Amino acid sequence: MKPINVGLIGFGTVGEGVAGMLTERPELLARRLGFPLVLKKVADIDLTRSRGLRLEKGLLTSRNQDILDDPEISIVVEVIGGTAEARNLVLAAIDRGKHVVTANKALLALYGNEIFAAAAENNVEVAFEASVCGGIPIILALRQGLAANRIQEMLGILNGTANYILTQMTERSSSFGQALKEAQAKGYAEADPTLDVEGIDAAHKLAILTALAYGTRINFDAVNVEGISALEPIDLQFAKEFGYTLKLLAISRNDGGALEARVHPTLIPRDHMLANVSGAMNAVYVTGDAVGPILLYGQGAGMMPTASAVVSDILDLARNLSLGIRRRLPPLGSEKALETDRPIKPMEEVVTNYYIRFAALDRPGVLSQISGILGQHNISIAAVIQKGREVKGAVPIVMITHEAKEANVRRALTEIDGLSVVSPPAIMYRIEDPHLHAAQI
Amino acid sequence: MKPINVGLIGFGTVGEGVAGMLTERPELLARRLGFPLVLKKVADIDLTRSRGLRLEKGLLTSRNQDILDDPEISIVVEVIGGTAEARNLVLAAIDRGKHVVTANKALLALYGNEIFAAAAENNVEVAFEASVCGGIPIILALRQGLAANRIQEMLGILNGTANYILTQMTERSSSFGQALKEAQAKGYAEADPTLDVEGIDAAHKLAILTALAYGTRINFDAVNVEGISALEPIDLQFAKEFGYTLKLLAISRNDGGALEARVHPTLIPRDHMLANVSGAMNAVYVTGDAVGPILLYGQGAGMMPTASAVVSDILDLARNLSLGIRRRLPPLGSEKALETDRPIKPMEEVVTNYYIRFAALDRPGVLSQISGILGQHNISIAAVIQKGREVKGAVPIVMITHEAKEANVRRALTEIDGLSVVSPPAIMYRIEDPHLHAAQI
Repeated sequence: MKPINVGLIGFGTVGEGVAGMLTERPELLARRLGFPLVLKKVADIDLTRSRGLRLEKGLLTSRNQDILDDPEISIVVEVIGGTAEARNLVLAAIDRGKHVVTANKALLALYGNEIFAAAAENNVEVAFEASVCGGIPIILALRQGLAANRIQEMLGILNGTANYILTQMTERSSSFGQALKEAQAKGYAEADPTLDVEGIDAAHKLAILTALAYGTRINFDAVNVEGISALEPIDLQFAKEFGYTLKLLAISRNDGGALEARVHPTLIPRDHMLANVSGAMNAVYVTGDAVGPILLYGQGAGMMPTASAVVSDILDLARNLSLGIRRRLPPLGSEKALETDRPIKPMEEVVTNYYIRFAALDRPGVLSQISGILGQHNISIAAVIQKGREVKGAVPIVMITHEAKEANVRRALTEIDGLSVVSPPAIMYRIEDPHLHAAQI
Repeated sequence: MKPINVGLIGFGTVGEGVAGMLTERPELLARRLGFPLVLKKVADIDLTRSRGLRLEKGLLTSRNQDILDDPEISIVVEVIGGTAEARNLVLAAIDRGKHVVTANKALLALYGNEIFAAAAENNVEVAFEASVCGGIPIILALRQGLAANRIQEMLGILNGTANYILTQMTERSSSFGQALKEAQAKGYAEADPTLDVEGIDAAHKLAILTALAYGTRINFDAVNVEGISALEPIDLQFAKEFGYTLKLLAISRNDGGALEARVHPTLIPRDHMLANVSGAMNAVYVTGDAVGPILLYGQGAGMMPTASAVVSDILDLARNLSLGIRRRLPPLGSEKALETDRPIKPMEEVVTNYYIRFAALDRPGVLSQISGILGQHNISIAAVIQKGREVKGAVPIVMITHEAKEANVRRALTEIDGLSVVSPPAIMYRIEDPHLHAAQI
């Protein structure tokens, strides 16, 4: 049978992994498909850098245009990263009737709707399994495996760098700064770690997963984001005393009204499957109304895990090409997704449980003043720890609340921060604990 | 667009779940597909039993033939269970050019090769996501998501009943008999629990997963099987002292030569993701050469989780039908699988680590006699616990070995069982611990 030709744009880390898989295991891939896959051209601006992989000279080009203009190339893989040039490239490939595989979550979070609409217009496919959680087949699961479910919620550890840092802070009581330095030394964090530690990368991925889960347009701008750079080790220790582990969770939820979509440090019960996801690993805990809870876990980044997802997408597109079919499955898993908008709750409207730490300057009466103000804002307390250990001249009072509306919590904390018996600001983190039924105080 | 008609054979627990999903969420499914799915007929021998779900009267029939003979039904769902009648039904449906969805792991373990060959001959598809681990999309992952990988190994908790019993035995030190009774009372175990507790059900599933992972024919007869009914709580306690948890694992491994495929009680490190899979939950830990380790976790059985997988398979087949394509993806994920046989190692040739418990009648000198015999059979000891606690007049000596060949271990244990200083038989379980590097004694 006729081979299918692939063009690869971007010969960096992931590109090297993809080129390696395509050239080193042709028999395995042909066994899967029944026909051969051929890597026909690889484009990169830097052809001088030495790489672990040697390709035949004729394969390499410094001009992306050589791939876009090659009529024999039917699948274009974009792994250059960034958004501006990647967007132009992907749209140009689509315009020429080529199918696209991308690992670029920022691109899809920002321009996914535009790209998917262009793909529909040109009757081509855009595959993006590698854009979220590397080789973990979460997009496949949402598009196909769980497709008959109403997805109720997703809790994800979607950023390995942040999870590595949090694991260090939890297990070794390191400060954020120390843990970040170690992550950088080990190659888990970049010199500028902003995207990872401020939750932006996780929010890119959550925006994509939310669209897939609920069959809507991608709406990155509405995702609520808070990072981990302000975390203090003492809160990880207190979390542990309450039976929780602190993780940077990407959360989305559908209770019928506006969706929730938020990324922030979150306390989860120590016996939750996600609490055991440590180091640079990723995981997504999805609950469907029929299937119940499902966890998918694995390496969320790196050369080969990401390449694994890219090549599985290539196989999928190649099958469709060989059968002469196009767009068997719409990119977001639902024919109507691109026409569907669902509002996302602003953080103030979210209702959840809270961990709050106050710094009490003067103990007698403090607790009653604090709990009085909380009560006035409809916030009831599920548990309190008040210990004698002094932190910067104050004694911490740590509380777990019953479910409360975030707007109320914020108003109460502003009021409490004005009390003379506490040293502001109060520290607040959200909790995801379906079994929080401790007695009210 | 024209609807696709589905016929359901078997209106038991899973059938009720499938019928419920198809009739209660037509909009969601049509949104996914772009056209409607219609449940046209439901056949069951017992139409009098009251069920949670009410169907229109015209839908029900007591004759399977009504579904097989209906030219408008293009997808037949088989959820009657058992193997003899199910085989006839599935082959008859295939013979009539209908696509088949089945949740029947025993059927596929025993007759899968025959059924898949018949499907190829008749140019129809057989989908079976629900046959392994309920709604967990493990078959999708192996057929598509990880398709570019050389799968190296799989470790699975594939039977919820056995896992529930082991969890009870571990957490409450119950005996096997007590835990089984509790599982039966809670509806997790059947009156005759043989298939579940003797590992046969897990072996059915492992045979299917092994064929998918390595692209071979299904070879259930060669799977090595040991159940959990002989387990004593004391071994779960000793396992814990060594840092392990005991699970009924289904293991398959490909190191290039003969495959491993075995189901037996297994010690795994307490910090392994599988060690935290408790109660009736299922999980599969798959390692691919590119993707690294991946875990999929969820409910492995039950009405709705199983129905979730059946309906996702129906969606997939319906898409192909609407596009006029057939057999886009071969059932075992590889075009050559049905022509490929790979030998499976007999248990004697397996090399792994062992947990061994001896009952020492007379302490001085016993350890040196035992370790001497082990040494003669090339078995070296990684750790020993020798405690004063008496069990039936003897004192247990518990060992963890370095990697050894099972044939050698069995020969050594037979020899040791003949010593006058021990009370036979020695108890032996296998360990899966990639990090077992304790110093040799």
